[in-house]
Amino acid sequence: MKILDGKLIADQIKSEIAKDVQENFLDKGLEPPHIAAVLVGDDPASITYVNAKEKACHEVGFLSSVYRYPANITEQKLLEAVDFLNHDNQIHGFIVQLPLPTHIDEQKIIERIDPLKDIDGFHPVNIGKMTLNQPCFLPATPYGIITLLERYGIETTGKNCVVLGRSHIVGTPISIMLSRKSNAGNATVTICHSYSQDIPSITSGADILIVAIGKEGFVTADMVKKNAVVIDVGVHRVPSDETKSGFKLKGDVRFDEVAGKCSYITPVPGGVGPMTIVSLLLNTLKAAKLEIH
Amino acid sequence: MKILDGKLIADQIKSEIAKDVQENFLDKGLEPPHIAAVLVGDDPASITYVNAKEKACHEVGFLSSVYRYPANITEQKLLEAVDFLNHDNQIHGFIVQLPLPTHIDEQKIIERIDPLKDIDGFHPVNIGKMTLNQPCFLPATPYGIITLLERYGIETTGKNCVVLGRSHIVGTPISIMLSRKSNAGNATVTICHSYSQDIPSITSGADILIVAIGKEGFVTADMVKKNAVVIDVGVHRVPSDETKSGFKLKGDVRFDEVAGKCSYITPVPGGVGPMTIVSLLLNTLKAAKLEIH
Repeated sequence: MKILDGKLIADQIKSEIAKDVQENFLDKGLEPPHIAAVLVGDDPASITYVNAKEKACHEVGFLSSVYRYPANITEQKLLEAVDFLNHDNQIHGFIVQLPLPTHIDEQKIIERIDPLKDIDGFHPVNIGKMTLNQPCFLPATPYGIITLLERYGIETTGKNCVVLGRSHIVGTPISIMLSRKSNAGNATVTICHSYSQDIPSITSGADILIVAIGKEGFVTADMVKKNAVVIDVGVHRVPSDETKSGFKLKGDVRFDEVAGKCSYITPVPGGVGPMTIVSLLLNTLKAAKLEIH
Repeated sequence: MKILDGKLIADQIKSEIAKDVQENFLDKGLEPPHIAAVLVGDDPASITYVNAKEKACHEVGFLSSVYRYPANITEQKLLEAVDFLNHDNQIHGFIVQLPLPTHIDEQKIIERIDPLKDIDGFHPVNIGKMTLNQPCFLPATPYGIITLLERYGIETTGKNCVVLGRSHIVGTPISIMLSRKSNAGNATVTICHSYSQDIPSITSGADILIVAIGKEGFVTADMVKKNAVVIDVGVHRVPSDETKSGFKLKGDVRFDEVAGKCSYITPVPGGVGPMTIVSLLLNTLKAAKLEIH
């Protein structure tokens, strides 16, 4: 069994991006890629996530800006903030940190983002182009999963791939990406969700199992085929006596019992998580180089 | 075994649309829905298809216009033709008949169409919204399949659905639509294609089997589960002594041997085909009523 070390690969990719920034921007006298994040309110998880993005930007030499707005900002004002960033030539790409306060229509905000600056890859145009196998900004978590598979040389063509979960940001897009005529891709993909019957009989046929169902410890050893590749997207804080913080991060997969059966498996933390932020950096680099148009 | 009679259902829906046009347009003194088709060159199949669309329009009381251009039209001129229709307030929706001559970038033309007039549902915005389960123009053939299942009261929730083929206009979108959190939908969907291994073992687990692989007679009786629902999207002209024309239409499924095992099956012709044109009418009706925005 080998660990798919997302932290290690993310660090490698960050080094590559830093070199790219030096050679293709700074050495040529150009401003480096510049990400903006729009942060509404003071949700602690959102703040943590935006801070992590800023830190990653600084590591690779990107510029980053955070636009903070109070939780009671009107939808109209937030739309105007998006318009401002759409038209700001200094910003190559930006994200609006979700979730937004309930009085704001998230979808309306996402659709207002210029698709060419939509580095989260959530705009319908980018989702549509992804589905049609055209150049686009891929949603960050699925993009990170694909990159991890590629970096470890894991073949997906002709493999049976099962995806647990059909969220718009992970399960649905990764299922589409893996079935496309591309590499990684060309897999026979089955997507399961809360209405699926007899999930263990489906997962136990999977050469590659991607778990993004949001239930801690959902996948047990008997659900996994011998030598399968298992990708765990879940992140759950569970109470623990073993750590100083009093909690531990766990995934949707029972790592301790499943790992021994796998050829490859992602740990939680340190698997998919670090790849998500790196995907955002890769999308921004593409935006700054005008590679998507 | 019951036949899924696409011709019958299409005729029923056309009657419903005709009534709708009378009550919600003509009786109110409004112009009826108006479709335009752009036809480039003189490909016989394209002409046949555009004629069939015009005939269907007349049956339900829609207006229809055909814009004919020579095969050597430049891409720029065709883009201008699309712009003209985008801005023509008299036209509620239009299609550009595919395929286009090879010197024209089809995707560029499709992306130029105003998504709110894209009644074929091929624009990335509509494909993206379909994937995100938002109101949009659904691509005509998958929309027709969904409608056929609904009209026959065939439950898809929790069913194992296998889709053979991953084309952008049938296989990929129907696989997405059937897995969405919607009804029809909520199925466990597996999508297979040319790289898939041991397809018979996959299809023989399908409660609902959708075949859009473009190979005449590909699906044999041993590949189908007893009491499965089988939807055949293939259309092939094969030579025949039995008909005056010297050919017969056949599907991707060997109807004669498969039908006996099914609970429901679509014939070819008269199954999915008539539903495709009716879907175009339904999309146009939605466009004229401004139901998609």
